[in-house]
Amino acid sequence: MLNSYSEKLDLEISSYLDSLPDEGIYLPFKYILNLGGKRFRPSLVLLSTELFGGDLQEAIKPAIGVEVFHNFTLVHDDIMDAAPLRRGKKPVHLKWDTNMGILSGDVMFAQANALISSCYPHHLNKMVSLFNKTSIEICEGQDLDMQFESRNKVSLDEYIKMIRLKTAVLVGCALKMGAIIGNANDEDANLMYDFGVDLGIAFQVDDDILDLYGDQLAVGKQLGGDIIEGKHSALMILAKNATNHEQNNKLTSLLENTNETEKVLNVKAFFDQMNIKEAALELKHTYYSKAIDSVHRLSIQEKSKKILIDFANNLMKRNF
Amino acid sequence: MLNSYSEKLDLEISSYLDSLPDEGIYLPFKYILNLGGKRFRPSLVLLSTELFGGDLQEAIKPAIGVEVFHNFTLVHDDIMDAAPLRRGKKPVHLKWDTNMGILSGDVMFAQANALISSCYPHHLNKMVSLFNKTSIEICEGQDLDMQFESRNKVSLDEYIKMIRLKTAVLVGCALKMGAIIGNANDEDANLMYDFGVDLGIAFQVDDDILDLYGDQLAVGKQLGGDIIEGKHSALMILAKNATNHEQNNKLTSLLENTNETEKVLNVKAFFDQMNIKEAALELKHTYYSKAIDSVHRLSIQEKSKKILIDFANNLMKRNF
Repeated sequence: MLNSYSEKLDLEISSYLDSLPDEGIYLPFKYILNLGGKRFRPSLVLLSTELFGGDLQEAIKPAIGVEVFHNFTLVHDDIMDAAPLRRGKKPVHLKWDTNMGILSGDVMFAQANALISSCYPHHLNKMVSLFNKTSIEICEGQDLDMQFESRNKVSLDEYIKMIRLKTAVLVGCALKMGAIIGNANDEDANLMYDFGVDLGIAFQVDDDILDLYGDQLAVGKQLGGDIIEGKHSALMILAKNATNHEQNNKLTSLLENTNETEKVLNVKAFFDQMNIKEAALELKHTYYSKAIDSVHRLSIQEKSKKILIDFANNLMKRNF
Repeated sequence: MLNSYSEKLDLEISSYLDSLPDEGIYLPFKYILNLGGKRFRPSLVLLSTELFGGDLQEAIKPAIGVEVFHNFTLVHDDIMDAAPLRRGKKPVHLKWDTNMGILSGDVMFAQANALISSCYPHHLNKMVSLFNKTSIEICEGQDLDMQFESRNKVSLDEYIKMIRLKTAVLVGCALKMGAIIGNANDEDANLMYDFGVDLGIAFQVDDDILDLYGDQLAVGKQLGGDIIEGKHSALMILAKNATNHEQNNKLTSLLENTNETEKVLNVKAFFDQMNIKEAALELKHTYYSKAIDSVHRLSIQEKSKKILIDFANNLMKRNF
């Protein structure tokens, strides 16, 4: 369903990029935007705009702004994480260098602000307040994520807070932007936001589940990457919460194994024994249910609600 | 004259910083803002607001936003330039690390957007358009500056374009913000902008002159730093423009000297022989005159014009 939007967006993004200079910091800008991606977030701006009967033409630039902002975070995160690959290609800081990554990211953020502010003036206050709040939170989420790397234990609440800030609020922001452009009342706009945030959390928990339990062919990479990297994933946090002292020692010793394949297999067996996958699916379902609950409370037509619910169901059914 | 504003701003900035969390990315944020500085740019927002009879209370947050944004650019520029010091102290990327520099800079940019958008709603469109344009240009200016480092020759026009984008437009932006808050008409607002930009250019040319010809005690560092670093300063560009083929070879050989003290002395003697200082002072005066011309064209009271002209004169009279 989002496919039709993503095709439209690819065209619009392409013509937007053509309007930018062909040199300096705009080369990495164009490079990362042209690496593809599903245009998931800007598609949500357009979908939500249509559901509330807004002007799609007004929504295009803010939608592109959301995508440009998202790509800015990818460029800076890739530097911070020393990522070797981005969508199978060299990330900006390796194709160019770290300085180019920093500065092209900065101008992407600045251009994203300009794109989002090009909505109609009577929507500007709400659009800008929403986006400023969101961009601040996303920086705070990345901060938490980096802090977690040097910590032994992370609570489930802390983990949920981190993924809410780092990834979920931008999904909520995209959906709420469409509601603002469609002149939705404040309650509906906030319900769309909550729908997006809760769905974003469910999606991220799902991501952690698929990292170990996904279809390897579909995921396209070695399963268990989170275990190898020692990440505080949803699975690991749930496991640590569920263990007694003895089991926790067992898990710690399994994680110390230097044979990566063996480590993944053993930890997975340990998780299976503790029903961690089921606990994670339950966690995902809790947020999924909250998301659906927000849809039911919207004051829009039932067929519009069905579109949102179908979209959420599709998102939850992926195996990669 | 700006001193009374900077004292007020120090208090306001301090209470703003107190409202932010005391952890993670907000620690470098507070650190850099607390390193001091003259609060030059935010003072201009307040000065301009008062000259146009605007509400100073409205202007405070946008003024702080301009200062926070300026400090964001310092944090990221210091990473890109591998700067060892910032205002005599460790820059953020050395007191913490590069990742902290990147991410705390990002959240400073995001918070600056929020501060600037907290003006009254009827000023929002103009304020946000102005600031977005300015922040984009400043990234482009830093891009040009970095490109110049790997180039043999830079024309005077290119140099002026670079300093206009990298530093002067923020001075113009600060002054225009005050005009917007003071409900100035568009022509006056644009004249304030032009005044700031031209003054900013004159100031930057002056900076280059003082780097070699300043009062060493007042400058507080070794004179001739630009020559040692091989920078395309206003002096160097004017010198290269004024030389014939033979003189140019002479200058090139002087610049190859590995004895830094000797190099500075010899290049300075060469500049003196070619009257480069005078040419640079003339360049500075051209932009200073343009700035003053804009003031005369403003439709404000003569005593208000005098305040701006006194301010410009004071700025041009410094010897450090």
